[in-house]
Amino acid sequence: MRVYIVGIGPGSKEYLTLKAVETVKNADIVVGSKRALELFDIEEDKWYILSKNIVEDLKKVIEYAKKEKKSVVILSTGDPCFSGLLKTLLKYNIVNREDIEVIPGISSIQVAASKLKISWEDYHILTLHGKEENRKVLLDLIKDNKKVIFLPNKNLKEDIEYLIENGVDENKEIVICENLTYPKERIIECKLKEVLHLNLSYLVVCVVK
Amino acid sequence: MRVYIVGIGPGSKEYLTLKAVETVKNADIVVGSKRALELFDIEEDKWYILSKNIVEDLKKVIEYAKKEKKSVVILSTGDPCFSGLLKTLLKYNIVNREDIEVIPGISSIQVAASKLKISWEDYHILTLHGKEENRKVLLDLIKDNKKVIFLPNKNLKEDIEYLIENGVDENKEIVICENLTYPKERIIECKLKEVLHLNLSYLVVCVVK
Repeated sequence: MRVYIVGIGPGSKEYLTLKAVETVKNADIVVGSKRALELFDIEEDKWYILSKNIVEDLKKVIEYAKKEKKSVVILSTGDPCFSGLLKTLLKYNIVNREDIEVIPGISSIQVAASKLKISWEDYHILTLHGKEENRKVLLDLIKDNKKVIFLPNKNLKEDIEYLIENGVDENKEIVICENLTYPKERIIECKLKEVLHLNLSYLVVCVVK
Repeated sequence: MRVYIVGIGPGSKEYLTLKAVETVKNADIVVGSKRALELFDIEEDKWYILSKNIVEDLKKVIEYAKKEKKSVVILSTGDPCFSGLLKTLLKYNIVNREDIEVIPGISSIQVAASKLKISWEDYHILTLHGKEENRKVLLDLIKDNKKVIFLPNKNLKEDIEYLIENGVDENKEIVICENLTYPKERIIECKLKEVLHLNLSYLVVCVVK
């Protein structure tokens, strides 16, 4: 059995790779959020929509596919190898490592860099998604005046409060890239303290220059 | 005048995004290496093949495009925002920042991560391409037992010699990903000292786990 983890990029169809489109077209079952599935021109009877119990759902569909000898594509926002679904699949032993093939996708980190016209090799790249310990790493980097691009935890305001409480200047400049590639995309340059009053979605990439 | 810097990914056509294909299709002039230009289904009279004098060539074609009010696409291997052409264009003031639009592409770093099924948020990402000072950074990271993915300088062997001469264990394991996505792709797991005897192309990504 072959399981493809396909990166779908930041969310807009135009960021799909030809390989992602092709791989999905040839699959028996395509697993993902409804929003992800709708990016592809495939019959709905191939769809398997993930609920919030991602791990349970994935176990179920993989078991079914194994029994029925079907090929499976799992859609992963951004790049599966950056804060993506690859880690979940391996951590919970949902699929054998050797049965997996990963198709990379454009990460929101890259979209943010392209919009701001900066080179991300000059930045420290960090995700706080389910990585509590990285808050301290972020703090140290910013105190050390390093350039950072980071994905916040679910609640950016908590991250910002933590930084300010631990001695970062509340007037430090930050760039918030929200809903990248979606119609509601916003790029906001402001001070750290101003972030606390913003009404933001959960789709956010932050840049500290 | 609009100048699009389009990331073409690691080299194989299937890693192009739909946005890259569309942007190139709509351009008046498309600038790049012959190998890059051949990825797209466009008439050869739109081609502008770069010589080794990249900066001079780019200045020339941009000046021409400005005069003739043509739109220009510049093809950049990998992601233009990672060790790519964006920096060159800005550094030499070839185009005004506000006239540029960047279309991200899949970086070879991401392809390496996908092939090895590792998550690059757990790694330090580094390029030595034209960044002599990063050799020392690489040395410190490896001595500190950090995980690193790096693009070597033109000559990987020199980088490896530098590491060994400066106290890194010559038996340390490294993974060399060569010619990723090309027919001659190779993934070699070996010790540092063994790299010195390999015959490698210049298209290399290195991973130290």
